[in-house]
Amino acid sequence: MEISREQALQYVKPHLKASRFDHTVRVVDQAVELAKQYKVDIDKAEVAAALHDYAKYKDVDEMKRWIVQDRRLPKDLLDYHHELWHGPVGAFMLEKEIGLDDVDIISAISSHTTGKKHMSKLDKIIFLADYIEPGRDFPGVDEVRQKAESDLDEACRMALKNTIVFLVEKGRTVYPDTFHAYNAFI
Amino acid sequence: MEISREQALQYVKPHLKASRFDHTVRVVDQAVELAKQYKVDIDKAEVAAALHDYAKYKDVDEMKRWIVQDRRLPKDLLDYHHELWHGPVGAFMLEKEIGLDDVDIISAISSHTTGKKHMSKLDKIIFLADYIEPGRDFPGVDEVRQKAESDLDEACRMALKNTIVFLVEKGRTVYPDTFHAYNAFI
Repeated sequence: MEISREQALQYVKPHLKASRFDHTVRVVDQAVELAKQYKVDIDKAEVAAALHDYAKYKDVDEMKRWIVQDRRLPKDLLDYHHELWHGPVGAFMLEKEIGLDDVDIISAISSHTTGKKHMSKLDKIIFLADYIEPGRDFPGVDEVRQKAESDLDEACRMALKNTIVFLVEKGRTVYPDTFHAYNAFI
Repeated sequence: MEISREQALQYVKPHLKASRFDHTVRVVDQAVELAKQYKVDIDKAEVAAALHDYAKYKDVDEMKRWIVQDRRLPKDLLDYHHELWHGPVGAFMLEKEIGLDDVDIISAISSHTTGKKHMSKLDKIIFLADYIEPGRDFPGVDEVRQKAESDLDEACRMALKNTIVFLVEKGRTVYPDTFHAYNAFI
């Protein structure tokens, strides 16, 4: 299947709140900027960014059924917060629904929230674009934005560090892929 | 094999610096206190605490050889800082050298630095005694000490949280067992 940036955005639009769609458009722009800078396929970056939050507002029970039923979705997701499910479940649903078959895009959508041990450049770009797009405003984001201009890996490490510190300070669990990703950047 | 607190302390003494031996004696006292409070076998707590740092000053290459050679020692230790090796390698050497065969004590020595996913009460007590013994003085230790008087699990969670934040702020790797232990306490 081949899909353009506009087709991808139109496909996800009815599934998102307006504010989330605006965020998605900013992630697309940010991803394109990073893709140019780090020499990653711009078309793939656009489509992955446009689709990354497709399952953000899917019903939790529906997502749970997919995780239980499909052997490709990791079962340990069920032990962690359902906020983490929309990446892998969204990628999976897009395979089923629109025949998304680009493994690079599927991987980037799937890992955009948690990161994972072995991240491709496209994975890193979608993860980072989602973290630093101009609408984001949380402690440490400016430092990550600045680092993203010169060092993709170091920017990812900083974002993962901030995420881990945020979660453990709040007394929340950390999905294993997140700390595997963090360790991989050290 | 049966071994007393005094025998265990005399066995480790020549393997430790004086300051580390003093720390060990304080860990024994702290572990006994926690064992009384949380109704854990005091003899086991004494011996595990006395032996916990046995391999602290073993030669790094010697420890590496054991990790490479023995199938019971996890190979992924080699991907992480050698400071983490003395627990599992020490437990393993004590099995070989003095016939230590108490699986509870072996587990507690093995996991005292990193924690692990499924910690017994004895594991928790040795981990925590090592963290809060009165000679320890680092940010957050007083809060953990206080919590240890009323809630063993919560005190462990706080200690693991502090450890993870310390490591990621320093840009250091975090051994997966530490994250698994942390998540298990949430």
